[in-house]
Amino acid sequence: MEINSLLAKRTQGIKGSAIREIFKLLQQPDIISFAGGLPAPEMFPSKELSEISKDILENNGDAALQYNITEGYGPLRDIVGKRMSKINIGQDFDDIIIVSGAQQGIDLAAKAFINEGDGVICEQPTFIGGLNTFRSYNARIFTADIHEDGMNIEQVENILKSNSNIKLIYTIPTFQNPSGVTMSVDKRKRLLELANKYNVFIIEDNPYGELRFKGEDIQTIKSTDRNGRVIYVGSFSKILSPGLRIGWTVAHKSILEKMVIFKQVQDVHTNIFAQMLAVEYMNRYSIDEHIEEAKALYGKRCSRMLESMDKYIPDMCKYTRPEGGLFIWCTLPEKYDSLDIMKQCVENKVAFVPGNTFASEQDKPSSSFRLNYSTMSDEKIITGIKILGNVLEQMVNV
Amino acid sequence: MEINSLLAKRTQGIKGSAIREIFKLLQQPDIISFAGGLPAPEMFPSKELSEISKDILENNGDAALQYNITEGYGPLRDIVGKRMSKINIGQDFDDIIIVSGAQQGIDLAAKAFINEGDGVICEQPTFIGGLNTFRSYNARIFTADIHEDGMNIEQVENILKSNSNIKLIYTIPTFQNPSGVTMSVDKRKRLLELANKYNVFIIEDNPYGELRFKGEDIQTIKSTDRNGRVIYVGSFSKILSPGLRIGWTVAHKSILEKMVIFKQVQDVHTNIFAQMLAVEYMNRYSIDEHIEEAKALYGKRCSRMLESMDKYIPDMCKYTRPEGGLFIWCTLPEKYDSLDIMKQCVENKVAFVPGNTFASEQDKPSSSFRLNYSTMSDEKIITGIKILGNVLEQMVNV
Repeated sequence: MEINSLLAKRTQGIKGSAIREIFKLLQQPDIISFAGGLPAPEMFPSKELSEISKDILENNGDAALQYNITEGYGPLRDIVGKRMSKINIGQDFDDIIIVSGAQQGIDLAAKAFINEGDGVICEQPTFIGGLNTFRSYNARIFTADIHEDGMNIEQVENILKSNSNIKLIYTIPTFQNPSGVTMSVDKRKRLLELANKYNVFIIEDNPYGELRFKGEDIQTIKSTDRNGRVIYVGSFSKILSPGLRIGWTVAHKSILEKMVIFKQVQDVHTNIFAQMLAVEYMNRYSIDEHIEEAKALYGKRCSRMLESMDKYIPDMCKYTRPEGGLFIWCTLPEKYDSLDIMKQCVENKVAFVPGNTFASEQDKPSSSFRLNYSTMSDEKIITGIKILGNVLEQMVNV
Repeated sequence: MEINSLLAKRTQGIKGSAIREIFKLLQQPDIISFAGGLPAPEMFPSKELSEISKDILENNGDAALQYNITEGYGPLRDIVGKRMSKINIGQDFDDIIIVSGAQQGIDLAAKAFINEGDGVICEQPTFIGGLNTFRSYNARIFTADIHEDGMNIEQVENILKSNSNIKLIYTIPTFQNPSGVTMSVDKRKRLLELANKYNVFIIEDNPYGELRFKGEDIQTIKSTDRNGRVIYVGSFSKILSPGLRIGWTVAHKSILEKMVIFKQVQDVHTNIFAQMLAVEYMNRYSIDEHIEEAKALYGKRCSRMLESMDKYIPDMCKYTRPEGGLFIWCTLPEKYDSLDIMKQCVENKVAFVPGNTFASEQDKPSSSFRLNYSTMSDEKIITGIKILGNVLEQMVNV
């Protein structure tokens, strides 16, 4: 039976995440992988959560194992709401819901706004999970280039000027994935002005914002939103655990109301035991102290990687110097295809993610690639960068 | 700012589940609620899971708290796959994935097949979570009536004959929600033949199938599927715990491949800790023995409710006598509106779900309603049914 022709149009032109495929490929233990985007497992509070999980199921198992409401576990909404208030997120017209990871927040926002053919403006390069979400609703994807101070706002305005059915702007303004760059205060302000002027909404995806290990915090776009233009998406994945799949969304009530209905048909509610674990962890321990430790670790590993790169990577390769988050973005002269380089590196037991993965047109070669430093020992970082440097040197000399 | 007009078309004409709204309303402890569809909390193996959760996080926390693959945790797929094989589910062309509750399986199947305006044939009445899923993809919903032996197959064929863009048939063939009825073997066979003849697919939603407390098991539709026509959706919600949000889907690889991509943009993967809990529970204990206990409990409660109904409910009210599952379906003469009756019952501290909730046209009054018996003590069942009987008697005498 030929099934593909019977499937929905949206199944065409959407591919699984290349990162995920690489992730599968790289189960070999001897490979040095800079390809992932995983938080360091030594940062997981396994011991603490082990005690907590036992206590919750012993004393409150009826609630932890039963159905619950779609909006999320009340005490978790309260705690996260208070954390958001501290950074001035949440107006009277806003509300907060718990989602099954930030990814679900993006998906539900897209589902609430996108009719087939509607436009979404994305950063170029950007997170493939965002791109694939918009693709899955048959959105038209427009892109604005990422610069050192964030997305190109002139391009955003030009797209808005010349297209009438743009619904959303998708941005990861802080420690962007994959580029690692942070949008300047001025650009954030201008982006929000454009959203108001052209009557479109911003998805502010901020999974890395709390992981600043250098420089000064910059206020989120949502914290300056006085009209309900911004759908803010946060996550416990990088500050507590990704396996638990807990994130949150702060947005105007009228938007969240619809997102809740769509969440209801997606998964009824987020795993309630996991929500209770997060609450009890934050009641018994300081998550802020925990985040400080994570920042110190990632800062150290980032420095180690940058030091090695300064030493072993040839000059023709430019790279960002992130102040937080998990990624360094490297760019070679245009004639090089990072997919070829990756293949050579994998033969030498080093992996990373080629840049085309993060582009709106995935089949177009990219001379850029992404390196991740969060899970590697110092030794492996140095060894891996040396190998990458060798592969690049050989290319120059061909 | 007027937001609603900027939202996607799919946000119109979709309402949150009335059951969920009732669920919120009924937090009052003195109400006797036959409105839910919750498994009995005394069936949750909280103590066992408490020990297991501690062990997993102590010994394998790195895996339990880290990202994992979208398809699901390998050992869980294996165990569930073996359980499925025992009931002849799974051909060479099939595969199995773990989903965040059966609800997600339905959603992903709909997303893989439905273009705007495509048709889905549903049972009437049916599960609102199914209806709302199809609505959320702007599907056209067609209905075939539920009889004592399952959906009206002639109606299904007529719909298929006279409409060219039907993609899916959605059925809960065993202990259907809300009617409690089970589709006969003959109808199952004819439904599958129709799917093959008209080139459409069947979503077989089977959350209650393992909860038979009377009569003989009937083979699933999927077990006789030799062409990949059936997308089978199973769930741990009614046999282990709904709060953990774990279900599974068995379908043709070409379909699952697309569903996996859509799952990836919905929640990346199902909570991995929960998946490990389920595996370890099944390794250490017999889930079949556990299911036997649940069946005994639900069978007893169902009998208690039916006995009370035979005694206190006036003859004009007809009701099903389920052999499994969680629900009894009651039907009054057409002139009555079950919504009015529910309002009167709630004033007398008894609740149930009016039938219009389960209909394709929710605004049309329904003379039917759903009763749930799974979570109530014998005493409350008897008291509640007495009250319901009184309300109905008074109606007859008006």
